[in-house]
Amino acid sequence: MIYLDNVAGTKPDQRVIEKMMPFFTEHYGNPSAHFYPIGREAFEAMEAARVQVAEFIGAKADEIVFTSSGTESNNLAIKGFLGHTANKGKHIIISEIEHFSVDTVVTKLLNDGYKITKLKVDNGGLVNPADLEKAINEDTVLVSIQYVNPEIGTIQYTEKLGEICKSKGVAFHVDAVAAAGFVEIDVNKLNCDMLSIASQNFFGPKGAAALFIKEGTKLIGLMDGGFQERGYRSGTENVPAIVGMGEACALAKAEMGDYVPRLVAMQKKLWEGLSGQFDFLHFTGHESRRRPGHVSFWIEYIEGESLLMWLSLKGIACASGSACSSNILADDEDDLVASSVLTAVGVPTDICAGSLGMSMSRYNIEEDVDKVLEVMPETVQKLCEMSPMYNRDK
Amino acid sequence: MIYLDNVAGTKPDQRVIEKMMPFFTEHYGNPSAHFYPIGREAFEAMEAARVQVAEFIGAKADEIVFTSSGTESNNLAIKGFLGHTANKGKHIIISEIEHFSVDTVVTKLLNDGYKITKLKVDNGGLVNPADLEKAINEDTVLVSIQYVNPEIGTIQYTEKLGEICKSKGVAFHVDAVAAAGFVEIDVNKLNCDMLSIASQNFFGPKGAAALFIKEGTKLIGLMDGGFQERGYRSGTENVPAIVGMGEACALAKAEMGDYVPRLVAMQKKLWEGLSGQFDFLHFTGHESRRRPGHVSFWIEYIEGESLLMWLSLKGIACASGSACSSNILADDEDDLVASSVLTAVGVPTDICAGSLGMSMSRYNIEEDVDKVLEVMPETVQKLCEMSPMYNRDK
Repeated sequence: MIYLDNVAGTKPDQRVIEKMMPFFTEHYGNPSAHFYPIGREAFEAMEAARVQVAEFIGAKADEIVFTSSGTESNNLAIKGFLGHTANKGKHIIISEIEHFSVDTVVTKLLNDGYKITKLKVDNGGLVNPADLEKAINEDTVLVSIQYVNPEIGTIQYTEKLGEICKSKGVAFHVDAVAAAGFVEIDVNKLNCDMLSIASQNFFGPKGAAALFIKEGTKLIGLMDGGFQERGYRSGTENVPAIVGMGEACALAKAEMGDYVPRLVAMQKKLWEGLSGQFDFLHFTGHESRRRPGHVSFWIEYIEGESLLMWLSLKGIACASGSACSSNILADDEDDLVASSVLTAVGVPTDICAGSLGMSMSRYNIEEDVDKVLEVMPETVQKLCEMSPMYNRDK
Repeated sequence: MIYLDNVAGTKPDQRVIEKMMPFFTEHYGNPSAHFYPIGREAFEAMEAARVQVAEFIGAKADEIVFTSSGTESNNLAIKGFLGHTANKGKHIIISEIEHFSVDTVVTKLLNDGYKITKLKVDNGGLVNPADLEKAINEDTVLVSIQYVNPEIGTIQYTEKLGEICKSKGVAFHVDAVAAAGFVEIDVNKLNCDMLSIASQNFFGPKGAAALFIKEGTKLIGLMDGGFQERGYRSGTENVPAIVGMGEACALAKAEMGDYVPRLVAMQKKLWEGLSGQFDFLHFTGHESRRRPGHVSFWIEYIEGESLLMWLSLKGIACASGSACSSNILADDEDDLVASSVLTAVGVPTDICAGSLGMSMSRYNIEEDVDKVLEVMPETVQKLCEMSPMYNRDK
């Protein structure tokens, strides 16, 4: 199986797994139990991981709060931050192409009297910084814009967006879940007040994620109870996963310089190969500002999900839309829900029946690209023959 | 190291770890990605674990929602349930000795106009069912009472409490985190609408927990985003930990009949041994209605934390108060915070300077009890000699 859905989750690095193992078998103590060795060992390992996470994104260790998923980090950032701003203002700005865990959270706030601006993106998926500047008003308390879009791979002008927020005195949250491990992250350069990353998206385990909370930024927690994570996140910490996340951060920091250029080269080869094969294939996202190793496209009249299934039968795993949206079932199977991201970047819904995303990881090799380029023409040809619309129009 | 703080977390069973491993190394897919094998495998394993968890507590699989910790399950139960009852009433009943993740959540609701009744417990730590019956009024929407108290080991009359809630038409949540794997749980016998358990408390991994939500009971989720866990809990599921939790449930279901009687026997030996050694030692909790393998006590004039540290130096790990409260630091080290549980069960704060809890697991052996009984007299003697109050009064 050639795995090309790394935005939905990566294969954990073997070195990460090995680092985690003793925390299942030996150092299984509760990190809040400081009075005996196996509790202290768990606590110290967790704090060492916190340093690794902090160093990975240019933060201080006590600016890192561990959570269980990118979704939890995004929820904590937005709901937690608004817990302290009710008197300051009720306007929030996001983009049209945010992940569900930002878009849904913010949309629900409409019920609480918030006003929401969803910034449009251009055909490449980019927010225009001038639009952000114009959208900020006296009532604006929070801007939340993702660093990288998982579906179309676009990398925002996050530094510029952060500068604007900083100059206007508005808090800036960055969902960097699809960026971490693939695009360099430095919270200082990004001028952000909060930033979310999730371990499983860069060769760490599921069940560990983090929210950077800049010193001086105040949040309320989503979960109350014990005083874990300085009160921001009660509950016994998932020590093995946190240790794994720390190691994944250290490895990414040390090794991105090696594998990212390789991903860029493979992406170029795949992009050019597909361009040469089909004249009715359209890439989505931005050509240059995109996640290394990420190629996404749609093919006129071809259903994304059909293509996905045929490719899976040929041993190639990739994504149609975001994994997180695939449980949102339409009323019946024929009634496929159009991706809001595709609509936002101006894909014509009459001749587009779903897109495909191929996101590589450090484990992919050039032969994987060759295999995709070998399999695609025959698969697309078969689907074209099955498409009544294609046969009518071509 | 003899580990006797199993209420703070147990050593994961080796069979559980082995079951988890392939979900780090091979089946690392996102369970929302149904279109290719490694996503489907993750999904199917997670659903198989859901069946195991359900069978462990007498529920149906679709009544189980996976969370990341017992604290999260308790938060989801209370905050989630109240999300749908704002128009029905604003009175909540808990006991005086609930875990922080219930007590803090409920106490904060005072700010939102809720009225809270905290039922008193007797010297054994038991809620009197008649008190619950009297406390329920027309405004009562939720009762949340733990099954087993981690600090003093008391097992409540949960069946009876559930019957009363049912007859009065009030929802009943049971925090069963300290019960699971040690006391039989059957959600039907308990007449509960919600019940929390956490994997790490019965030989499963950290990072997986569950909330039973009885069919027909409506909650709002704490985390918004994708449609994971039927919308009750968005975010990529921690598949390896969930698989581990499923296995831990299956093992506990199959093997509690073997290890629980052994724990009861070891508890009896420890209890009787300590009784014979000290006349100024006082047990806390109930003598018979207690978690198997759990012994808790305080010794006149002896600081719980000092005893804990000396025992740790002798290779015995146990608890003073609940692990979750140990981060709540007093203003200075001399200003130790009295445990609210000890106060509730009538321990005199003038001659009690903290209690000790020893909670055994299936991995403890009789020789562990022998060792404790060997080490205790010399340790207590040393601490007595160091205590100015002891020397004054004795």
